[in-house]
Amino acid sequence: MNTIVDTYLRTWNTTDAAARAELLTQHWVEDACYVDPLAEVAGRDGIGAAIEAVQAQFPGFVFSRVGEPDSHHNQTRFQWGLGPEGAEPVVIGFDVVVTNDEGRIASVHGFLDKVPA
Amino acid sequence: MNTIVDTYLRTWNTTDAAARAELLTQHWVEDACYVDPLAEVAGRDGIGAAIEAVQAQFPGFVFSRVGEPDSHHNQTRFQWGLGPEGAEPVVIGFDVVVTNDEGRIASVHGFLDKVPA
Repeated sequence: MNTIVDTYLRTWNTTDAAARAELLTQHWVEDACYVDPLAEVAGRDGIGAAIEAVQAQFPGFVFSRVGEPDSHHNQTRFQWGLGPEGAEPVVIGFDVVVTNDEGRIASVHGFLDKVPA
Repeated sequence: MNTIVDTYLRTWNTTDAAARAELLTQHWVEDACYVDPLAEVAGRDGIGAAIEAVQAQFPGFVFSRVGEPDSHHNQTRFQWGLGPEGAEPVVIGFDVVVTNDEGRIASVHGFLDKVPA
């Protein structure tokens, strides 16, 4: 199991704003950077808002791991899926998550592998 | 064509130390970070030394692009091959290159996709 990926996806799957803010505080650095094709945000609040926007766009959908993460040093690459729980993902993405020396998420470099036609 | 990937691979393929240092100065930020499974270095000098070590390990081999890079915002993901010129690559890797606002390489997050058995 890859803890950082699970923590990362739990942040994305947490719809309660206070619980999500707590995860961001515990597991992300204050000035964390997040970039994917549709969003470029920095800081815990900005990242929390970006997550909330995606949750609002895809109500009931969940993020899950696709395949096995590949980690070394302070960086991990992995695929994720977004879709109804237990169903084939509608969207598949790929992220590199970079942590600081304390294991907190410092930057996320996201790309999309499969989007709805 | 993806300029940043071509510039990046040109840096790796330049065996003349002075020419390589010039490429690092022009196209990389001073405190650039480079991390792959076998190396974690920071700064132009450190990165130049890491490149020189790989060139010494694989004399006559060249880096080439594999497939099409995928870019958005300040980040690009792509595969590269390392092998004799014009031949099937012996090693295939995958990098995410992140640039600063001036288009200089600020960080490289590298992984390996295929290594010799």
